[in-house]
Amino acid sequence: MTRAQIIDAIKEKESFLCVGLDTDITKIPAHLLDMEDPVFEFNKAIIDATKDYTVSYKINTAFYEAMGIPGWQSLAKTLAYIPENIFTIADAKRGDIGNTADQYAKTFYETYPFDSVTVAPYMGKDSVAPFMQHKDKFAIVLGLTSNPGSADFQQQPFKDGLLYESVLSTVASWGTVENTMFVIGATRIEFLENVRRIIPEHFLLVPGVGTQGGDLNTVAMTAMNQDCSLLVNVSRAVIYASGGTDFAAAAATAASDYQKEMSALLKAKSIL
Amino acid sequence: MTRAQIIDAIKEKESFLCVGLDTDITKIPAHLLDMEDPVFEFNKAIIDATKDYTVSYKINTAFYEAMGIPGWQSLAKTLAYIPENIFTIADAKRGDIGNTADQYAKTFYETYPFDSVTVAPYMGKDSVAPFMQHKDKFAIVLGLTSNPGSADFQQQPFKDGLLYESVLSTVASWGTVENTMFVIGATRIEFLENVRRIIPEHFLLVPGVGTQGGDLNTVAMTAMNQDCSLLVNVSRAVIYASGGTDFAAAAATAASDYQKEMSALLKAKSIL
Repeated sequence: MTRAQIIDAIKEKESFLCVGLDTDITKIPAHLLDMEDPVFEFNKAIIDATKDYTVSYKINTAFYEAMGIPGWQSLAKTLAYIPENIFTIADAKRGDIGNTADQYAKTFYETYPFDSVTVAPYMGKDSVAPFMQHKDKFAIVLGLTSNPGSADFQQQPFKDGLLYESVLSTVASWGTVENTMFVIGATRIEFLENVRRIIPEHFLLVPGVGTQGGDLNTVAMTAMNQDCSLLVNVSRAVIYASGGTDFAAAAATAASDYQKEMSALLKAKSIL
Repeated sequence: MTRAQIIDAIKEKESFLCVGLDTDITKIPAHLLDMEDPVFEFNKAIIDATKDYTVSYKINTAFYEAMGIPGWQSLAKTLAYIPENIFTIADAKRGDIGNTADQYAKTFYETYPFDSVTVAPYMGKDSVAPFMQHKDKFAIVLGLTSNPGSADFQQQPFKDGLLYESVLSTVASWGTVENTMFVIGATRIEFLENVRRIIPEHFLLVPGVGTQGGDLNTVAMTAMNQDCSLLVNVSRAVIYASGGTDFAAAAATAASDYQKEMSALLKAKSIL
């Protein structure tokens, strides 16, 4: 998908919700466990229930990798089941030297045809650039993450500022807004303001809303630009909204509630 | 494997060679391509030819992941074929928030029972610590890598020093020499000296010798300590020593040559 297509989808659905399919087989409703592929059946039901309210699905590959080959089969079936006009993210956080990064780009752009993949910046330009060189695909680079460990290096003094600030400005100079996004946690308003000073135009993938405690209204009012340029990810608060046989209906309600709030925020920012 | 077992293997084989199985199906000899699992057949022949000269095998997961499920099958078969007393490394460079890092640890310590996995430090303690909490397993954390991009962030001013220096000292404080190693590229002698000032005891996984141009003698004389505490990785210079039907014999010769040089270096340092 292109940046313009993502923006169109946001306006059409009045939503910038990304649902995170961090599907853990130990957490899905018990009645699915007798089926041949419980993880796929769970994801299929979640996608059916939420696809009208979301513009993106993010698959956290770790949960699938941990299951071995059955996990990769569930991942492939899930990816194929996602409607074409919904932006897909392989949340894989890969990062390695050039010839190896090429193999990871092949993995998540071709073998498993996602629209984007999350990428770690520590190894520098030749580890990130291979993810920027594919038409209509996006490298989503870790900028400022939402976990406690983001304080260990990302938020520490680096050159004239902080490490994450330099990662944002440096990585932004390697690509364009058409092939690069950034992961920015929804943890503190002053961080979001600062991020928008450094990268006013780029799409941000924002985790940390919902179970992790981030506030959607604050994120939108602080970081939304004239094209929206936000994908707010919610995982557990949608997919595990109920642990019973009504899990899909509960996920639909949770996603619909986020969509309504997002619609109001898009209107408040005069994007709709 | 424990640290003591690795040191014993180094002394017994008079080698600190790690052979990197970065097996690219487009680069293996043509006569293997008719077989059911060409990548595994290649690896099997390489392991048979080199196992007497090496104390470790490193599997670069990207090359397997790019092939999808057949790749993971080749990886599993290769791992199972490696003799038990040889230290195995999943070169996967994972790094994510705590609950996801747990899934990656499960992937590479249980689903695929490696002895260790390479880990990226950008997301901080909760992304790294889950790899340190399994008995006789090692997190091998990226410190200073051998690629051009290591200059972009790792070698830049951070706090009172450089970023990689802080990564080494900080990550070292989260674990012990029994559960933590570091990736340190063999690119410049002054870096190696500096690394040993910061972490004198830890094992270092050193890529960049061979095709990438690093010099084995310099690495050993600079970074070997009283327990050796080095694993020097060579990938392409061993596994692609010949592209013909004699590829295994050529790999054996290349690995044996490294082993002889390493034996002399261990003697020069009075470890043997």
